[in-house]
Amino acid sequence: MKHIDIEEIQSWERFYRANFVNALSGFKAVSLVSTVNKEGTSNLAVFSNIVHIGADPALIGFINRPRAASPHTLANIEATGFFTINHVHPTFADKAHQTSAKYPEGVSEFEAVGLTPTFKAGFPAPFVAESMVQYALELSELVFLEKNNTYLVVGSLQHVFLDPDFVCSDGLIDLNKAESMVSLGVDAYCTTLPHARFAYAKAAKPTTRIDFA
Amino acid sequence: MKHIDIEEIQSWERFYRANFVNALSGFKAVSLVSTVNKEGTSNLAVFSNIVHIGADPALIGFINRPRAASPHTLANIEATGFFTINHVHPTFADKAHQTSAKYPEGVSEFEAVGLTPTFKAGFPAPFVAESMVQYALELSELVFLEKNNTYLVVGSLQHVFLDPDFVCSDGLIDLNKAESMVSLGVDAYCTTLPHARFAYAKAAKPTTRIDFA
Repeated sequence: MKHIDIEEIQSWERFYRANFVNALSGFKAVSLVSTVNKEGTSNLAVFSNIVHIGADPALIGFINRPRAASPHTLANIEATGFFTINHVHPTFADKAHQTSAKYPEGVSEFEAVGLTPTFKAGFPAPFVAESMVQYALELSELVFLEKNNTYLVVGSLQHVFLDPDFVCSDGLIDLNKAESMVSLGVDAYCTTLPHARFAYAKAAKPTTRIDFA
Repeated sequence: MKHIDIEEIQSWERFYRANFVNALSGFKAVSLVSTVNKEGTSNLAVFSNIVHIGADPALIGFINRPRAASPHTLANIEATGFFTINHVHPTFADKAHQTSAKYPEGVSEFEAVGLTPTFKAGFPAPFVAESMVQYALELSELVFLEKNNTYLVVGSLQHVFLDPDFVCSDGLIDLNKAESMVSLGVDAYCTTLPHARFAYAKAAKPTTRIDFA
């Protein structure tokens, strides 16, 4: 095993460093965050720093880069209070990635990359019709992280749309079946395979497997 | 597609709801967080809410559950300021899961589940010898999320240990090759397969593939 210390990492060329550090924390749930501005123009952007905050209340967050680097999603959420998150699948991973390009003001990434906005359940922000797992959130907390000027955007879950066949008998959503993707670093997209589920761990008991069914 | 609203989710039995909501945000990087207390007893706990915060400065965070539910990791990090994060692989996914059991005070999960603590680079917290990707962090920011009493623990990267064969020519760590796992919900563990890498997206250019090499 090679030992790499922080001085060496800091000495690297910045894209090399970004690729390395971004992958180090592991695979990430890659999703499309969809918002609208006050004028009704929709925005769609690929995010991979999505994090489960809690199940009750149901809170899901994501890390938004510094305001200057990624302005529209954050501004739209602040203006309207609403956003949707839509899983990415192999059939449109290239389009999801393409949303990271800088499009001129007033251009919707939906149109630019060829994905379909769909409005449902009276929710103000559109969902991505092509996505197999879609959910809607209302802004709950916006936490500024001063060390690097990023934001933790926490949303309160409002609606979910998915195929009920993905849901196991105990509530687990089998995202292997949905073919929801993970991302790695800033530009890699990967698929998954189930390995095992394990029963609730107890100190006095051996680890036992349970089913995905 | 089925529409499920938050009122329905709130009406569910709590384990069913936890399984569902925890999976909804997508697959997660699953890792073992290792710490020591002031008396030198090591603690090892599986965490899957790990989040990339930034590459320069290199900051990686994780969500820690409310203090009462998961006391040792947070207390040790507050007491010493240091922790390591160690990727989980199929060879010891069962042992990683078993660290979530409640062991008596003074029992190290390393010994209880059969994983090997290893001290390196003068770092105060041990690494998990069985892990193929290990990294060490110093506490940088501890953010309390008041909506559900959780904490975002942000660490500043200090050391990395890995096989240099995992690192692509442009810095990406190919975690498919390392067989680093992802988790799903509270008890499922999955493996990954590479799908595609895409070049930096530009508005005027079609999406183009790049190599994992």
